[in-house]
Amino acid sequence: MLNDRYPSKLLEKAVEEFAKLPGIGRKTALRLVLHLLRQDKTEVESFGNAIIQLRKEIKHCKICHNISDTDTCTICSNPARTDSVICVVETIRDVLSIENTHQFNGRYHVLGGVISPMDGVGPGELEIDSLVERVKQNNTSEVILALSTTMEGDTTNFYIYKKLKNIEVKVTTIARGISIGGELEYTDELTLGRSIVNRINYSDTLVH
Amino acid sequence: MLNDRYPSKLLEKAVEEFAKLPGIGRKTALRLVLHLLRQDKTEVESFGNAIIQLRKEIKHCKICHNISDTDTCTICSNPARTDSVICVVETIRDVLSIENTHQFNGRYHVLGGVISPMDGVGPGELEIDSLVERVKQNNTSEVILALSTTMEGDTTNFYIYKKLKNIEVKVTTIARGISIGGELEYTDELTLGRSIVNRINYSDTLVH
Repeated sequence: MLNDRYPSKLLEKAVEEFAKLPGIGRKTALRLVLHLLRQDKTEVESFGNAIIQLRKEIKHCKICHNISDTDTCTICSNPARTDSVICVVETIRDVLSIENTHQFNGRYHVLGGVISPMDGVGPGELEIDSLVERVKQNNTSEVILALSTTMEGDTTNFYIYKKLKNIEVKVTTIARGISIGGELEYTDELTLGRSIVNRINYSDTLVH
Repeated sequence: MLNDRYPSKLLEKAVEEFAKLPGIGRKTALRLVLHLLRQDKTEVESFGNAIIQLRKEIKHCKICHNISDTDTCTICSNPARTDSVICVVETIRDVLSIENTHQFNGRYHVLGGVISPMDGVGPGELEIDSLVERVKQNNTSEVILALSTTMEGDTTNFYIYKKLKNIEVKVTTIARGISIGGELEYTDELTLGRSIVNRINYSDTLVH
């Protein structure tokens, strides 16, 4: 199926471009392109322009490094949010996930990844120094580490923890445990073990 | 998850545009957009432009109605192909599928769909008159009907057959039967029945 003889170079080019996207093969790409061909000219133009503009005009917030249309993102410039708590995450997508929970009203700091020597990512490639600087300069009372529970995530957590050791700030990490609605027998032993070690007072769960 | 508060209007717009594509939800759209954000500016621009150009500049072949970059498509203008056999298909995608088999060296005629009163598609909406005209004017010896085996496909087959009745041309339809590698017990009765009625000499299968 890979040696499709397309009747049009324009079609071929568009299919190739779509097929570069993650999780999209040539068959799906062709389906998407043929769908676009059936749409209004203006709609397809608006699609193409949205992609070009996105990459051309989008900025990274100079405070938290989240993506933004302006120099400072909407979260960092929102006066209604708590300045004293910074939640450290790997990527922009994690910001969106946490925002969707509506459980956090502080600020964020997007590292841009985790320390991973295998992939050639050292602390210098990440926004760690700027985090330390931010914690120092602002009156930050708590840094919440919300990284992946992988070896790389743990390494990064520990690296940041050491960097913040001499600054007077509480360093916490998000709770790991059995997901709500999850059944004990289907939970992996590591998570189950951690959820016993980090058990909390039952009365605390009643307050919320 | 639908009430994502995106930190950027540009991001939101791009996600919305991707989510309009068939089979792509907002979560996948976000994943694709974040992927594009990590690519080179020139690459993303080339993607956007490929989409815009495709819709703006693509043409339909004036002979077979396949998509084309020029007035006459590469198949219709290829002198190495047989003029006397026309394969009638519903869509551009069917042309690609048949081309990929490398078993057909004639010309095509893309109807643009099948007769479907339920969807408001009558014979007038399809390229049937132009097919009849083509068969009349050229020295066409055979018309192969290669439409879907649905009620709409069968109706369209019959309609075309009647239209061509007074012209001296052989009208054939592609063989229906058990797919190669298919097992009898898993084949539906209709197909199995048809494959018995339309049985062929065993020796004919040995020739190819």
